[in-house]
Amino acid sequence: MDRLLKRCHIKNRLVKECLAEFLGVYILILFGCGSVAQVTTSQNTKGEYLSINLGFALGTTFGIYVSKGVSGAHLNPAVSLSLCFLGRFSWTRLPFYVVSQVFGAFLAAATVALQYYDAIFQYSGGEFTVSGATATAGIFSTYPADYLSLWGGIVDQVIGTAALLVCVLALGDVRNTPAPAGLEPVLVGAVVLVIGISMGSNSGYAINPARDLGPRVFSWIAGWGVEVFRAGGGWWWVPLVATCVGGLVGSLIYELVIAVHHPLPDMTKEVNMDGVQEENSEKPKEIPTAWQQVAL
Amino acid sequence: MDRLLKRCHIKNRLVKECLAEFLGVYILILFGCGSVAQVTTSQNTKGEYLSINLGFALGTTFGIYVSKGVSGAHLNPAVSLSLCFLGRFSWTRLPFYVVSQVFGAFLAAATVALQYYDAIFQYSGGEFTVSGATATAGIFSTYPADYLSLWGGIVDQVIGTAALLVCVLALGDVRNTPAPAGLEPVLVGAVVLVIGISMGSNSGYAINPARDLGPRVFSWIAGWGVEVFRAGGGWWWVPLVATCVGGLVGSLIYELVIAVHHPLPDMTKEVNMDGVQEENSEKPKEIPTAWQQVAL
Amino acid sequence: MDRLLKRCHIKNRLVKECLAEFLGVYILILFGCGSVAQVTTSQNTKGEYLSINLGFALGTTFGIYVSKGVSGAHLNPAVSLSLCFLGRFSWTRLPFYVVSQVFGAFLAAATVALQYYDAIFQYSGGEFTVSGATATAGIFSTYPADYLSLWGGIVDQVIGTAALLVCVLALGDVRNTPAPAGLEPVLVGAVVLVIGISMGSNSGYAINPARDLGPRVFSWIAGWGVEVFRAGGGWWWVPLVATCVGGLVGSLIYELVIAVHHPLPDMTKEVNMDGVQEENSEKPKEIPTAWQQVAL
Amino acid sequence: MDRLLKRCHIKNRLVKECLAEFLGVYILILFGCGSVAQVTTSQNTKGEYLSINLGFALGTTFGIYVSKGVSGAHLNPAVSLSLCFLGRFSWTRLPFYVVSQVFGAFLAAATVALQYYDAIFQYSGGEFTVSGATATAGIFSTYPADYLSLWGGIVDQVIGTAALLVCVLALGDVRNTPAPAGLEPVLVGAVVLVIGISMGSNSGYAINPARDLGPRVFSWIAGWGVEVFRAGGGWWWVPLVATCVGGLVGSLIYELVIAVHHPLPDMTKEVNMDGVQEENSEKPKEIPTAWQQVAL
Repeated sequence: MDRLLKRCHIKNRLVKECLAEFLGVYILILFGCGSVAQVTTSQNTKGEYLSINLGFALGTTFGIYVSKGVSGAHLNPAVSLSLCFLGRFSWTRLPFYVVSQVFGAFLAAATVALQYYDAIFQYSGGEFTVSGATATAGIFSTYPADYLSLWGGIVDQVIGTAALLVCVLALGDVRNTPAPAGLEPVLVGAVVLVIGISMGSNSGYAINPARDLGPRVFSWIAGWGVEVFRAGGGWWWVPLVATCVGGLVGSLIYELVIAVHHPLPDMTKEVNMDGVQEENSEKPKEIPTAWQQVAL
Repeated sequence: MDRLLKRCHIKNRLVKECLAEFLGVYILILFGCGSVAQVTTSQNTKGEYLSINLGFALGTTFGIYVSKGVSGAHLNPAVSLSLCFLGRFSWTRLPFYVVSQVFGAFLAAATVALQYYDAIFQYSGGEFTVSGATATAGIFSTYPADYLSLWGGIVDQVIGTAALLVCVLALGDVRNTPAPAGLEPVLVGAVVLVIGISMGSNSGYAINPARDLGPRVFSWIAGWGVEVFRAGGGWWWVPLVATCVGGLVGSLIYELVIAVHHPLPDMTKEVNMDGVQEENSEKPKEIPTAWQQVAL
Repeated sequence: MDRLLKRCHIKNRLVKECLAEFLGVYILILFGCGSVAQVTTSQNTKGEYLSINLGFALGTTFGIYVSKGVSGAHLNPAVSLSLCFLGRFSWTRLPFYVVSQVFGAFLAAATVALQYYDAIFQYSGGEFTVSGATATAGIFSTYPADYLSLWGGIVDQVIGTAALLVCVLALGDVRNTPAPAGLEPVLVGAVVLVIGISMGSNSGYAINPARDLGPRVFSWIAGWGVEVFRAGGGWWWVPLVATCVGGLVGSLIYELVIAVHHPLPDMTKEVNMDGVQEENSEKPKEIPTAWQQVAL
Repeated sequence: MDRLLKRCHIKNRLVKECLAEFLGVYILILFGCGSVAQVTTSQNTKGEYLSINLGFALGTTFGIYVSKGVSGAHLNPAVSLSLCFLGRFSWTRLPFYVVSQVFGAFLAAATVALQYYDAIFQYSGGEFTVSGATATAGIFSTYPADYLSLWGGIVDQVIGTAALLVCVLALGDVRNTPAPAGLEPVLVGAVVLVIGISMGSNSGYAINPARDLGPRVFSWIAGWGVEVFRAGGGWWWVPLVATCVGGLVGSLIYELVIAVHHPLPDMTKEVNMDGVQEENSEKPKEIPTAWQQVAL
């Protein structure tokens, strides 16, 4: 068996990375959207809003565990794009990562639909609707609350994704208080948890274009129809655009308020208080910027 | 006292391992089924669905802490079987592990029944039933939701157990982002938590043949009768068969998408980013595959 | 300031340890009983049963952080007693530890009563009762559910405390899968959490004689009267006696099923997989038994 | 991009620290008050009291990750003041830290108001009130429960902040059981969680003058008016004064009961059981007191 498997060995690094990003986002959405499906179709008897927050948080955690050693576990086009802007990820790889991420989310949405087919059918009476008492489109992608204005929604997603990037960059910044080796996935999951707890009610905290687009396309194809793009006054593009803007805003905030002020390279030794991390990672001699070690 | 205890020392490794698997599953089910008993008999006043998810998750965590250093803490025949298929656990030990696991689950179910005897009696009015308003068989083993078709149930268990194996293999893969030494039990518990949160409502996320069979046999003997096998259209075999299939599917997915593409052995040093793990475990010089270090 | 403080330096080791046990249990009960007070007096609007479980769990965690480096953080007479029976703690120190633990719990109960005085007064209308719709004695100590027989209660506490000891001994067993250095308090807290989730509804999971006796004596003095000893058919002695029995049972189970079968000392190196722990603790050359390193 | 950013490099250490304290408190309040806004405006459908506890806890955690490596992450004037009293932080820096903390909280409150503008408007019908059925001032700062007397409120805040300091000092005390390197932020967050669970119902557990004052000033300016200072019988000054008193009380308790009794410096080696921590931090040769290494 082991030998058979080894024949499938792929050497191309980009292909490996795309596979890892694909599986990472797949796991993220499988658990995330799965928890929404469970809460929705059980009518809050087998879970509550906090379960959904935990589903996406732990989905993120295990999505990262599955992929981080191979691809750096961006799992989010807004993250990949921010790293490109900051010059820490190559623009040429960006489209490959993004396509893999969206495709992973799409396939995971299909898996959730398969696993919850009976439940969704019974809950909705076979009517796959985007709004109304037994709407089920929200299992897959995000929709704004009735009260939310378009600008309110854009601001909501910009702030949410900016908060994500500030925290994630801090967790990976070896000159600040980095997460312990091997626990980064748990802590990034905790960031997603707290964003869901504190910024989830306006529009469902997409904070990730792939998380929203992949499942939305699936629900469009799978029977919810073109209404998934029309609902909320054509909401669908906000989680794609505003999250990318927010990612950049958050990266700039962390860089300008914290990272650029770190002591210069030759003083690194004095400042860095986490000696273990120092020894274990093969950091380049230049200033190690957050995310740099995993995301070339 | 210490001397008296030392007289009980057993040298046979397989016996030790079976004892460890037995106690591990015992702890898992004691806490897991105990939490269902608490929520059921207190009629949701002393817990909620999330408590049950936490009960099985932390049950798994401490089941692993109790046994991992001795037996590798499979605690699940679907895990043991998957490792055999992948050539990482010996077929000859498999039946011993499985019997120990099922027996641990059986005895734990008996303990839960003992601890909750008064509560179950009062809640059910002394009628031990499998269905109906005061059904209590669900304390011990899983039953499908009314709406679930047989194929839906099989798909549900295959997906759930596959997700378990993908995550667990990633957590143990030293060439990806392995869990920190000593925290693997917590993270595997977190996998069980998120599966319960996102895949629990269809059929109670058995994802473990021993977890389901042991307590089901106990409830059959202890007064719930043969109905425990008849209920849900003869549901009982699904958590046994579908979970094993799912375990294999998940193992193959992780191997094919991630593990087989890891750089070859002589490049290991360059790739592995977790130096601590490197030093502390006596890994063989050959490629260390996930689970290999604990499971022979 | 620093100089002034240093004048209070005490050299006697036993006194230091007693102070640490005192403060540890104080923190445990302050958070634990505090959470019951919050849920009770807010009538479940500012918390739920799970909050109480978390309150005692995190109370245990921080009680241990506050004391472990000094006294080993037993925080529980049933733990101290079990260690004496196993020959790992001195009988002569036992009474000092127990008195400190009970006194810490007593004073913490008084603090909770002080902090929640207005709330308890408003909730109960000034009537401090042990039973009835606005009973508040349950804030301080445990009482059995109406349906629970005396033997049922004894069995409940024996099983609960046995489960505690099995898990705690496993977490400290360097030849199994020990908790990472510095995270033992979190994991012992998690044991208390899962016991509360899975064994809390019968009689409130005392699993600790000091946790129950100290606050009960306080509530007797503070206005709830002698009824705190009479309620539940004279329940008060069960959390004292059954927990000690349970502690011993659990210790024996872990020793007989797991610990005594560990390879003999000269083989330790081969077996122990956690090299870090090895280096950091000054283990004696003899077989290191669980708890031994902290509890002499 | 990287070059452009590096031009903004600031060398003055105090300015850096103030920026870090600012961003740390900003993150704390953004998540903390955000979770209150979510629970309030969704009328408990997208969260519950436990969500608010988690929001402030994880807000604290990531506020610390964002700032600890630069400023020591006090994030709380009561903490800074206590350290000054104990001679571990300089009085001259105190006002700069406090102003940065309050300003961070103010700006975060403004961000929450921006993000939840539509939601608050819809929930309150456009009436920004401090009390009544659709009061929304509680999103920003704390108000006492109706039953709470002034002295009860003072006692509540003194006990809460004292508990915070006892636990935080223990977590940083290298001669006790210090939190593992890199996980201090998580554990301090857990302290805030358990305080919210066990001491939150009386007056909303401010336990931090900056957390309360900054958002209160914002709500005063932003439309809730001078009533935010008048409500609760002029409650506003209690979270400022009582928390500072409580911080000092807690520091003294930990010092007097635990820290001063640690063995003298030359015996440090024998006592300290956490060798890893030893090696990784450049501790001065004198006795390392809690917080000293980060908060000079």
